[in-house]
Order: sequence, then C-alpha cells, then structure tokens
Amino acid sequence: MMEKPFRIGLLGLGVVGTAVAHALVQKRGVLERRIGCPIELRRALVRDPDRSRPIDPSLITLNADDILDDPAIDVVVEVMGGEDPAHAYILRALRAGKHVVTANKEVMAKHGPEILTLAAEHGVDISFEASVGGGIPVIGPFKLDLIANEIREIRAIINGTTNFILTRMAADGIEFADALAEAQQLGYAEADPRNDVDGIDAAYKLAILGSLAFHTVVRPSNVYYEGIASLSATDFRYARELGYAIKLLAIARAERGAVELRVHPTLLPETEMLAKIDGVFNAVAVEGDLVGRILFYGRGAGAGPTSSAVVADIIDVAQRSLAGLGGSSRRTAPTYDEQVRFRPMDEVCTRYYLRLLAHDRPGVFAQITHALGEAGISLASVIQKQNVELGEPRVQYAEIVLMTHEAKEAAMQRALRSVRALAVVRDIGSMIRVEG
Amino acid sequence: MMEKPFRIGLLGLGVVGTAVAHALVQKRGVLERRIGCPIELRRALVRDPDRSRPIDPSLITLNADDILDDPAIDVVVEVMGGEDPAHAYILRALRAGKHVVTANKEVMAKHGPEILTLAAEHGVDISFEASVGGGIPVIGPFKLDLIANEIREIRAIINGTTNFILTRMAADGIEFADALAEAQQLGYAEADPRNDVDGIDAAYKLAILGSLAFHTVVRPSNVYYEGIASLSATDFRYARELGYAIKLLAIARAERGAVELRVHPTLLPETEMLAKIDGVFNAVAVEGDLVGRILFYGRGAGAGPTSSAVVADIIDVAQRSLAGLGGSSRRTAPTYDEQVRFRPMDEVCTRYYLRLLAHDRPGVFAQITHALGEAGISLASVIQKQNVELGEPRVQYAEIVLMTHEAKEAAMQRALRSVRALAVVRDIGSMIRVEG
Repeated sequence: MMEKPFRIGLLGLGVVGTAVAHALVQKRGVLERRIGCPIELRRALVRDPDRSRPIDPSLITLNADDILDDPAIDVVVEVMGGEDPAHAYILRALRAGKHVVTANKEVMAKHGPEILTLAAEHGVDISFEASVGGGIPVIGPFKLDLIANEIREIRAIINGTTNFILTRMAADGIEFADALAEAQQLGYAEADPRNDVDGIDAAYKLAILGSLAFHTVVRPSNVYYEGIASLSATDFRYARELGYAIKLLAIARAERGAVELRVHPTLLPETEMLAKIDGVFNAVAVEGDLVGRILFYGRGAGAGPTSSAVVADIIDVAQRSLAGLGGSSRRTAPTYDEQVRFRPMDEVCTRYYLRLLAHDRPGVFAQITHALGEAGISLASVIQKQNVELGEPRVQYAEIVLMTHEAKEAAMQRALRSVRALAVVRDIGSMIRVEG
Repeated sequence: MMEKPFRIGLLGLGVVGTAVAHALVQKRGVLERRIGCPIELRRALVRDPDRSRPIDPSLITLNADDILDDPAIDVVVEVMGGEDPAHAYILRALRAGKHVVTANKEVMAKHGPEILTLAAEHGVDISFEASVGGGIPVIGPFKLDLIANEIREIRAIINGTTNFILTRMAADGIEFADALAEAQQLGYAEADPRNDVDGIDAAYKLAILGSLAFHTVVRPSNVYYEGIASLSATDFRYARELGYAIKLLAIARAERGAVELRVHPTLLPETEMLAKIDGVFNAVAVEGDLVGRILFYGRGAGAGPTSSAVVADIIDVAQRSLAGLGGSSRRTAPTYDEQVRFRPMDEVCTRYYLRLLAHDRPGVFAQITHALGEAGISLASVIQKQNVELGEPRVQYAEIVLMTHEAKEAAMQRALRSVRALAVVRDIGSMIRVEG
C-alpha cells in the first residue's frame, strides 16, 4: 500500500454528509484495501458549529477556504445541495486542481457541461453518480455499460417524494394535500415541497440523464415539466378502472430525428414494471438498440443510498488518481458531441386521458366530440360516469372520462380551449398524458 | 484523434460474435468518437468456413494462432462459449500481453481468479460484463458502483431459459416437458438443455457474482444447485393459491459469519419484484448495507444484449489502453482478498413447501406431523387437498400440502427420510424451498 494518503474535504455535513463521513470513518480499513492507499477525511464544512457531529471536532470548519485553499486536499466532496454557493465552490475546487465528487443535481443539470469542460482543462475528475437515483447505478451505466447503444428512450420515476404521494393517493383514495402532509410528517417531503411536487427536481435529473444518454448538452430549459398538485383522488379511481396507474414519469425519447424530454403525471398500464414501483422507490427504464429494455430500481434518496454512490465515486477518483490518470478517461468524462434537435412540447405526440364535467342533457356529448374532432383529436374510449349535482339552484352534471387516440400536444391544447369554451361544459377536471 | 488503431481479434462468430462484429462495423464512427482512436476488427476465428458471414471474408480464419500470435492485435474478444478451448485461448492471449474481453461464464466461474491474477501479472485487462445478465450492467456495478457497500444478499433470476419455462408452466398450467419443448422450438433452450435446466448455468453465474460481491474466491463447487425438471403443474397451482410464484432463484447471502450460495426452485411471495419477472428476462436484486435493496432487470441473453456488454467492455479496455492504463485499475481487477466461510447446504435455514400423497384414513396426518416434529420441523400451515384414487385395486389417497417454519436443511432432509419411510405415505411429490 502506498504511504501518501488520499485526502478528502467534505462540503456539507447534513444528512448525506454525515452518512458519507460515517462510512469513510467506519469502513476505512476495507476502503483503503480497495483503493490501495490510505484515505483521510481532512476537513468538513458546516453551517452550524454547535450541532453534534459524528467526526472529530478539530476537522470541522465554518470557512470553505479551509478546504478549497488547502493544497493537501485531493478531492472535494460537495453534499451541500442547492445551486449557490455549491456551484461556486465546485468551480473553485476544479480550478485549484482538485477532483470533485458531487451529489448536486441542480448544479449538474444547470452547469454540467461547463463543469465537465473545466475539469478536463485542469486534468481532474468530476463525478456525480449520486445526483440521480441515489445509490442506484445510473450515471455509471450510461457513461460506460450502455455506451455501445443508441438510446431510444428513458422512462423514469426519479423523484421519491412524488412517488410516495402518488402511491398513497392510489392506495387509499386520499387527496393530494393529505398525502403531501403525510409525506412531510415522515420526512419524505420538505416544508416547502415545490421543488419535488412541481416536477422541477425530476426535470433536473432528466436533463442530466438526457445529456449522458444522447451525448449532447441538455439544459433544464429543454425539459418540459408539470407537477402532481392538480391530480385528484377521482382520477386515481378512474385510472384503476381503466387498468392504469398514475406516475410522475420523466421521459426522454429520441424519435424521428429529434429528442423530447418531459416530466408530467402519466397514465401507465398497470402491467408495466414502472407502474409497480411504489413508495419512495425510484426506477429508471432504458431502451437501447442493442440491449433492448433494461431497468434499474432502488431507493433514490436518503442518507444510506446517497452515501453509497458518493463513496463509490470517491473510491473511483482515488483509484484513478493513484494510477496517475486524471480527467482524461471517458469513465468520468462523458462526451457531449452529438447535435440533436429538441422537440418542443407542442410537437410531442401522446394519448390523453380527459375528465370533464358537463351539463347532463341530450346533445352535450356530441358538442364535446365535435369540438375535439375539429382540433384533430379522435376518441379511443368514453366512460360517462356518475351524475353530480352542483350549484344553487342544483344543476345536474355528468362526469365524463375520455381516452383519446394519439395526438399532438398543440392539437390537444387547442381542443381543450374549444371544449372549455362550450357553454355546456362546466369544468375540465384533468388532462393526463397516457404512455404505453 | 490518435492515428494508431485499436485492433480487435474475435474468437467465435456465432450468434453473439456476429452481433459484436456487426456493431463494430456499423457503429464504427460513433464508437471511434467515444474511444478517441480508430478501431479495427482485424480477424475473426470461425469453425465452419462455409457459412456466410457479416464481415469481409479476408478477415476470417480457421486458425486461432492467426489471432493469438498476431502482435498487432490489442484485444482478444472471446465469444465461443464452453470451457475448452476458450480457456486455453484466454490464457494464451493474456500471456501474449493482449487484453481480453469474454462473455464466458463457465470459464470465468471455474478459472476467474487465476485469469485475473495472470492478467495483472501481464499488465493487461480482463473484462467479463457479458458473462452474467447479458446486457444488464451487473459486473460493473459490483466492481465499482456498489463498492462502498457490505453486500448482504444477492437474489437473482439469471437463467432466461428456465424462467421462460417456469413462466409458461405458471401461466398455462402445462407440465415441464411441454414447456421445455416450447422453449426449444422458440430457440430459448438448446437441444441438450441440461446446463440450463439443471441449474448449472445459474450456478456458474452466481459463483461470478458471489466472488465480486464478497471479494473472495467462489468456486462453482461452493454453489449448491438443483434444477427445475422435477417441478409439476400441480405445484404451480398450489403455489398460486398460497400467494406465491415459483422461480429458479440464485441466492448468495452473507449472514452470521458465513456465506451461502445456492440455486434452486423457490417459492416467492407474488408481491415481490422478483416474482414478477417473466419470460426470458433476468433480474438481479442486491442488498447492501448503505444502498439498501436495488434491482437490475433486462434481457439476460441473446445477440443484442450480449453484444451491448461485449462492445462496452471493448470500449472500456480501449479507452484505458489509450490512457496508458493497463491492468492496474480496480475497475477491471476486482479484489478477492476477503476470507469467508462457506455455509454448507446442510446448515442453510429456509422454510419449505412440501407436497405428499398419503393414505386417506384417520391418524395418517398425526403420523406425518410426528415424523416431521421428531426431526425438528414444525408446521406453519397445512392444506389437505383433493382425494386421489390410484393403483389396482383402487386406493384412496389424499394430497397434502404443507408449509414449514424455518428449519435447517439437514433437519429437513432427515424429516423427508422419516416421512418417506412411513407405510401410510405413498410418495413425496415435491419439496420446494420458500423465501421472503
């Protein structure tokens, strides 16, 4: 074993940082055997100096400079989360010739290509396996194992918070607000849940996966996203009757010369593997021209799984560094050299589930189908469901559920405007895209 | 791009070899961009020179020496299958300082540790991702992504042939022989199916995975195996009534200071992910101390998936070779430095499903439970099922299905001998272990 230790600076000592520090300390012997040299947790940046920590207090600092300016530190491990100051710290570490391991999906989604370029310029590694799917290997497989494939499609459940909420809504028929409150109580959702619930977190992760899968620069702005807050218990009931689950799906698809990337609630046939992914679990399904369909499944968040990926990245960087190999290997430096056209959401084709409330009287249904047909939307099936009495004086309404044939998003949006404008339609309860 | 091409010699041009050659030729441009240097399929070894081939006839040879002795060849890709002469060719290639990529589970299971040592001595790489799970990344994740974990358990469906047969038996209530014949017609089973059907193929793969997971040398002789030929349609019917699927599971578990490795038909609760893996698909579920439970799923065999893994290995080897990195990286050289005790099958604890045929008269059941109890087996549930008339003159029998509590295999085997010896017991129809 070589004598010079590989020295680690930790930015952030929250839930993930603590788990990483714990693993580095507790598993030190076995990790050193794997790497082939001693490892040393040299310093950890915290915000609050008063909280008790799992590591030697002399290693704690409140000043990032103590890590970023320490020439003895070989790798900076960023587990603070959020865009700033994490982004700035990562850039500084790379410019100082330090390798970087990060779990930061926001930074990698927004600035990944520039960060990779900077790392290559400075001959250092940037690894980010933990940024998508927690401990499930997904970045590694895209960078290496699937590299011989032309990737046709990614379909993924990559936000555990929303999948927990949707699973609760499906299982117990409760409404979104109640499921969210439960997720917050269990620590699966944050006090301000918008990043998860609105689909932003999943969109960041899809941008990262899309970049790797299609070897091109995907920006968060290339990803359409829509959250789950408007889903209602009613839709889960209808979906089940129709043989579907409702999932927040992140979809990236290369088809007819363009790539589409989108995150939105999706009706999925319950026979599909992805429809069976419940609770806080994540799953990433990939279709490649050689490999066919494969799927990766596991816990996509949490201290243990995330630290599993972060520590693996640290070991990888340490081994490569020990072998005298900097940022030159493609193992950690994916290529973004393909030119692709991004298909705008308007041009995306899917089927649609539609639930609306209309006056319950003869001729109403004909008006609706006519409005849809004018916009180019044809119906695959119709379920006219229960009657509802609303308003004062009471008016009889019928709740109508429709499934369309495949249509372009622009046409569907046009159709929705026409239908909403009909005097006989009181409300469009929901429009959910259908896959599979 | 560097000018010197990376030269490939292909041993075997069967289904997999042809797909590899195809991918190398058809995807040459994009692969060269990923690697950063030209690649060249230099020569391919075939057995039958007369069959039409997808590659330039001048590249074909009948003599392995033309590849193994060609100093210009950088990597030898072995896709012949079988132990000999593949094993000898791999050794020769390594000794000649060539990298080796192989899809050969038998050779890697039987000789993996020696091959890895030889590769390290000669400073070259040996990669074998395609040997388990076809195109599903499993070797790579064990070597790198999961390396921070203490692996507690692997439970895997890693033989597509048997999973196809079991799926057909479960779905249509047909017997083993008919399902096997169907698998043979579809090309999913070989004319001599014993390697798959008897569990040998799965045992090889489990030995490879076990070596990687537990960082120790696992020999095929350390893996207990049992095939599926004795399963009957009746058992699938009972299993379903009890809420179970029957799968040929490959199990590796580290528990109480020892590692157990076994391949046998298993009753699995149908709610488990692995119980839902149907047809020729494979799935590998892993439990690690940090990552928790993860699962990899996809096609475990076939030309496309296998070539996906083989070509990825070729690209990895080429990139590392280009970076001046030989066999020194742990990416392709896992460590087998842990000492473990292997738990013999006799000491393995599981629950058991038992189906037997006994005389249908008072007191019989008491005799059976007494014999089981004497051996230390206690019953969890009992289903006494239909009456059967057999023999001449006709005798009334009762088919009895039992589920036991957890017990040691040795105790169960003792119990089976006692029960079989009872005059009132005509036959023990089946004994299947239960997991989950």
